[in-house]
Amino acid sequence: MKIRVYYEDTDAGRIVYHTNYIKYCERARSELFFVNNINPLEGNAGFVVRHIDADFLAPARLGDILEVKTSLLEKRKSYIILKQEIYKKSIKVFMMDIKLAYIDDSKISKIPHDILVIIDNMLQ
Amino acid sequence: MKIRVYYEDTDAGRIVYHTNYIKYCERARSELFFVNNINPLEGNAGFVVRHIDADFLAPARLGDILEVKTSLLEKRKSYIILKQEIYKKSIKVFMMDIKLAYIDDSKISKIPHDILVIIDNMLQ
Amino acid sequence: MKIRVYYEDTDAGRIVYHTNYIKYCERARSELFFVNNINPLEGNAGFVVRHIDADFLAPARLGDILEVKTSLLEKRKSYIILKQEIYKKSIKVFMMDIKLAYIDDSKISKIPHDILVIIDNMLQ
Amino acid sequence: MKIRVYYEDTDAGRIVYHTNYIKYCERARSELFFVNNINPLEGNAGFVVRHIDADFLAPARLGDILEVKTSLLEKRKSYIILKQEIYKKSIKVFMMDIKLAYIDDSKISKIPHDILVIIDNMLQ
Repeated sequence: MKIRVYYEDTDAGRIVYHTNYIKYCERARSELFFVNNINPLEGNAGFVVRHIDADFLAPARLGDILEVKTSLLEKRKSYIILKQEIYKKSIKVFMMDIKLAYIDDSKISKIPHDILVIIDNMLQ
Repeated sequence: MKIRVYYEDTDAGRIVYHTNYIKYCERARSELFFVNNINPLEGNAGFVVRHIDADFLAPARLGDILEVKTSLLEKRKSYIILKQEIYKKSIKVFMMDIKLAYIDDSKISKIPHDILVIIDNMLQ
Repeated sequence: MKIRVYYEDTDAGRIVYHTNYIKYCERARSELFFVNNINPLEGNAGFVVRHIDADFLAPARLGDILEVKTSLLEKRKSYIILKQEIYKKSIKVFMMDIKLAYIDDSKISKIPHDILVIIDNMLQ
Repeated sequence: MKIRVYYEDTDAGRIVYHTNYIKYCERARSELFFVNNINPLEGNAGFVVRHIDADFLAPARLGDILEVKTSLLEKRKSYIILKQEIYKKSIKVFMMDIKLAYIDDSKISKIPHDILVIIDNMLQ
């Protein structure tokens, strides 16, 4: 998924504000659902972020076009772990492992089979 | 209400990103409810923004402390108009008139009496 | 310009947070420059927002695809006024008139000729 | 440092959007400098985020008052590692270890002595 850096993404240091790389990754995850016409927020169920381990490798700046790449690291009954990397042309500017737990009515739940199938198809 | 300008509020132009002044005003409106222990989001009812007429008068920068002042311009059955001004010490950096309509289940509704009383007490 | 509504754009009211429509319009303005390989932030010169008159007409929600349309209302020596409208399919959800002044070293300045030509070409 | 959760901080899932906890921590770090009348952005030098290891433990919601606590884990010539935790009353909702490198003119540099002294005084 390609993402343009706009003014709102930068800060007074003239580079992208650090949390926005993590936002870009969330856009890429949601987009996986949207393009399949699935609402990621299904009733009271959905994925929530549990853990992030992130490296900020190089700065991005106003007007840059970034590319977010997502792959599946681990798939369990109630959570998945993804690797997401952001590139500016050939330079890797950001990478993180992110653990997402499936929550239904505020409780950790089994990921529904059809969602697991979609994740498999999309990311492997 | 006092608000500090943090990195997230600034952009690559090294000044506060324009829409953030409007966010600061929303914080000040919500705070009026929070300090009275009222949840501004009551069931499916609440105020929504209908119109904004805003002047951006001077830039604010990283670390500045701003003060938002709110007053009531007009009060009708289903909407109110507020004036909100933002000061950096004695300099007015932003001002807007904002019209807020009261919505219940997606329809314009009469503002409940107790909410009107609170608005009167808070802003006049 | 097409824009997808992501989680970050919505709030606890389950609709797009009001200032984000104004952000989308800024993205559309910046994109006009980016696609022409112009950095909108040229040294210390560039456009700053001076006035916004905005109508919030209908809510947009998570996953919606919005379209921002921009046209030129007025062009003077040191400022321009644009009309920007946001559509969700055929429904107009937002519209504003926005006045942008050209600033060089913190002072209002004549808009450079080459920038005026680009604006003319892009918006008329 | 106390932080109120406003509409802008929440998303359509009716909880605080995950990256905002990381923003709150940045506010707390910057505030440490502001209250000492130090501009964290000194010329072209300053701290940049290099690594984040974060746990999202419980949701926070509109109107909540959160408290950010910051302590020093490690101090080296050119970087520091902080632990930052966010509490909602007695519930820990978020925690992270964050590595900040000191950069001058885009290169990793020795943290100036006076800044190290301030960090020691503030966090130990």
